[in-house]
Amino acid sequence: MVQAAVMGYGVVGSGVVEVLMEHKDSIARRTKEEIGIKYILDIRDFPDSPFQDKFTKSFEDILNDDEVKVVAEVMGGVNPAYDFTKRLLESGKSVVTSNKELVATKGAELLRIAKEHNVNYLFEASVGGGIPIIRPLSQCLAANDVIEIAGILNGTTNFILTKMIRENMSFEDALAMAQKLGYAERNPAADVEGHDAGRKISILASLVYGKHVYPQYVHTQGITKITLDDVRYASAWGGVIKLIGQVKRLDDDTLDITVEPMFISRDSQLANVDDVFNGILVRGDSTGDVVFYGKGAGKLPTASAVAADIIDCVKHLNKRKYLDWADGDESIVKPYEETVYPVYIRVSADCDKKQLFDKAAELFTDVKEIVRSGSDNNEFAFTTGDMKAADIEKAAASFEEWGAKVVSKIRIADL
Amino acid sequence: MVQAAVMGYGVVGSGVVEVLMEHKDSIARRTKEEIGIKYILDIRDFPDSPFQDKFTKSFEDILNDDEVKVVAEVMGGVNPAYDFTKRLLESGKSVVTSNKELVATKGAELLRIAKEHNVNYLFEASVGGGIPIIRPLSQCLAANDVIEIAGILNGTTNFILTKMIRENMSFEDALAMAQKLGYAERNPAADVEGHDAGRKISILASLVYGKHVYPQYVHTQGITKITLDDVRYASAWGGVIKLIGQVKRLDDDTLDITVEPMFISRDSQLANVDDVFNGILVRGDSTGDVVFYGKGAGKLPTASAVAADIIDCVKHLNKRKYLDWADGDESIVKPYEETVYPVYIRVSADCDKKQLFDKAAELFTDVKEIVRSGSDNNEFAFTTGDMKAADIEKAAASFEEWGAKVVSKIRIADL
Repeated sequence: MVQAAVMGYGVVGSGVVEVLMEHKDSIARRTKEEIGIKYILDIRDFPDSPFQDKFTKSFEDILNDDEVKVVAEVMGGVNPAYDFTKRLLESGKSVVTSNKELVATKGAELLRIAKEHNVNYLFEASVGGGIPIIRPLSQCLAANDVIEIAGILNGTTNFILTKMIRENMSFEDALAMAQKLGYAERNPAADVEGHDAGRKISILASLVYGKHVYPQYVHTQGITKITLDDVRYASAWGGVIKLIGQVKRLDDDTLDITVEPMFISRDSQLANVDDVFNGILVRGDSTGDVVFYGKGAGKLPTASAVAADIIDCVKHLNKRKYLDWADGDESIVKPYEETVYPVYIRVSADCDKKQLFDKAAELFTDVKEIVRSGSDNNEFAFTTGDMKAADIEKAAASFEEWGAKVVSKIRIADL
Repeated sequence: MVQAAVMGYGVVGSGVVEVLMEHKDSIARRTKEEIGIKYILDIRDFPDSPFQDKFTKSFEDILNDDEVKVVAEVMGGVNPAYDFTKRLLESGKSVVTSNKELVATKGAELLRIAKEHNVNYLFEASVGGGIPIIRPLSQCLAANDVIEIAGILNGTTNFILTKMIRENMSFEDALAMAQKLGYAERNPAADVEGHDAGRKISILASLVYGKHVYPQYVHTQGITKITLDDVRYASAWGGVIKLIGQVKRLDDDTLDITVEPMFISRDSQLANVDDVFNGILVRGDSTGDVVFYGKGAGKLPTASAVAADIIDCVKHLNKRKYLDWADGDESIVKPYEETVYPVYIRVSADCDKKQLFDKAAELFTDVKEIVRSGSDNNEFAFTTGDMKAADIEKAAASFEEWGAKVVSKIRIADL
């Protein structure tokens, strides 16, 4: 019997306990080792829980108990999770987590400490919930150079965009519905402003490129400015708008890393990833495109990923899993202004179409009009060819000086 | 430096050498260990290959060289691969393979021998080519009870069906095209009769349920009888026909395991898996549906999966990966006649529609007509509710006695 502890008895934490209890027999059969839960750490009381004997309010109970070999940190947030995790690893216990904020901000340091103490720090649940992605990336695709990762990494925003695309719902109504269904928090900023997806792409990029790419290096833009008109133009163009977290390795070995709404073609494998589902596309030089799809959040999917990491730690007590990346700095990321991509632009202008498109052709490369039914008379939209982000900004500014109001600018993905 | 050997220098074998050579530096960086290829075993001569010093025609060279720790068996077929693999494992070398035929027929025995000698026998490449599936199933989803696996596991047949569905091509023409493009062999039986997919679902079932499910227990039916009329009825019904390998655990703990063409709904995540791509859906009790998608075959995708297994062995020299299943017998599989599912039935009959559907309603449960445009006057099609396979056969026989010719019967998937 190997003893584990769970820190945090919220949605994920109670799920971890449930998953481990319910699969006790099948896990013991596969692991050749029973896994017990000795402590559950939470400052709250749970008088109705059947696990009264396991609850503690003292972190030291877990830290000082030599029987506890593996701890699931599912508290969320950086503090006190960071301090707790550090001390557990230093005391020779393995830690597994779903805490993307902590991994994205302190991953390199915690992985180093784990290595120094010959224990494991695993975080399969931090990206994609129940979708296997960390292990496949670090093990199955180990003989690949990963050229690009692009994913729908946040279920809340994907739910909102799906409602806008399929049911013609406004952003505000779709957000309200997501909140009502429990998919979005009362303060939805972390989701709708793209920060949650930013942390996840930062973890995937660090894993694949071997250097910590901190979330503050990730150009991050949410979906709050997306309107139904943009959704309709995307449809007329032949695709949909999705919030994409993307990282590409450029020829000069820097990374183009961003979270932003993008036009993606209807033929893309990500185009049909709808509702609260996540989809992650990994482009390897040998494998080509591989896509992982499933529920990116939720109590049991996330808990099952945490539980699988606990099982893996139990199988590898005193053996290191080779999960590792070095510290990194801003120099590994290409400044966003210098990244290159095609863009969709929507303008409103009081002039005739020919005049407008003549001017557009002067300012942007490879301008192609998009026509949608039901558009206003003074509304125009087009796509460009590949342009530097800074040049797009400049061209848009000149366009505005000339008299065209630039209403939307949305990147077009190469997926 | 850890030394490896590659047995078989065909498409996959030459790919393995290429992938290991081209990623030498990045692999060494990640593995903290250089991987050398000391031998390439092949009975043929390759006078133009740059690896002259590595070729050998003698298996004993590899077997007797203590420096060689890991061997990639990419010869295919059961003999002599089976004998070679056994002797290598017995001599304390780890073996990795893409050989689905060998794993499907001898997996339990080879895994047992590997365990007895504290080495690894890995086969990520045997299912899904470059798509990570074996490792995610055995590790990431370890805290799940897998309720069902359903996959498009054979690229050749999926290419043929895609051509039939999207381009209205006949089976014969699509097969000829697949052969011309190198996707199908001159003798296409293993693909079009479903045997290749049968081996793959047998491996996945064994892995998940812990007992060897031999291919001969898998009800296997190919796509040779599928016609364009069936494709059109599937479309009218709201879906497509795909060759699905499927295993479900039933309430009595037996398995419903089959490879056969199925109607799948257009909303299913497998419906858009087209051309030579594979898609595998895993339904876990905690994760819900997780889908893996990518190139299921081809030189570099398959080779990269073999190479990743070599890397994993090198990281785990003298440590066992917990990949394991016991021997199994026919009793773990539900006899196909007793399995239950809804079915699509197409008949031709010289009678009026009311008569025919009255009779159908008498013989089958929950009969629902499907209408397609351009059908013949004496052609009718319908779907049924859940019925036992044996009862479907009986009802179809009675229908024929009554005077309706049953032209097609295709299972409807629950995906």
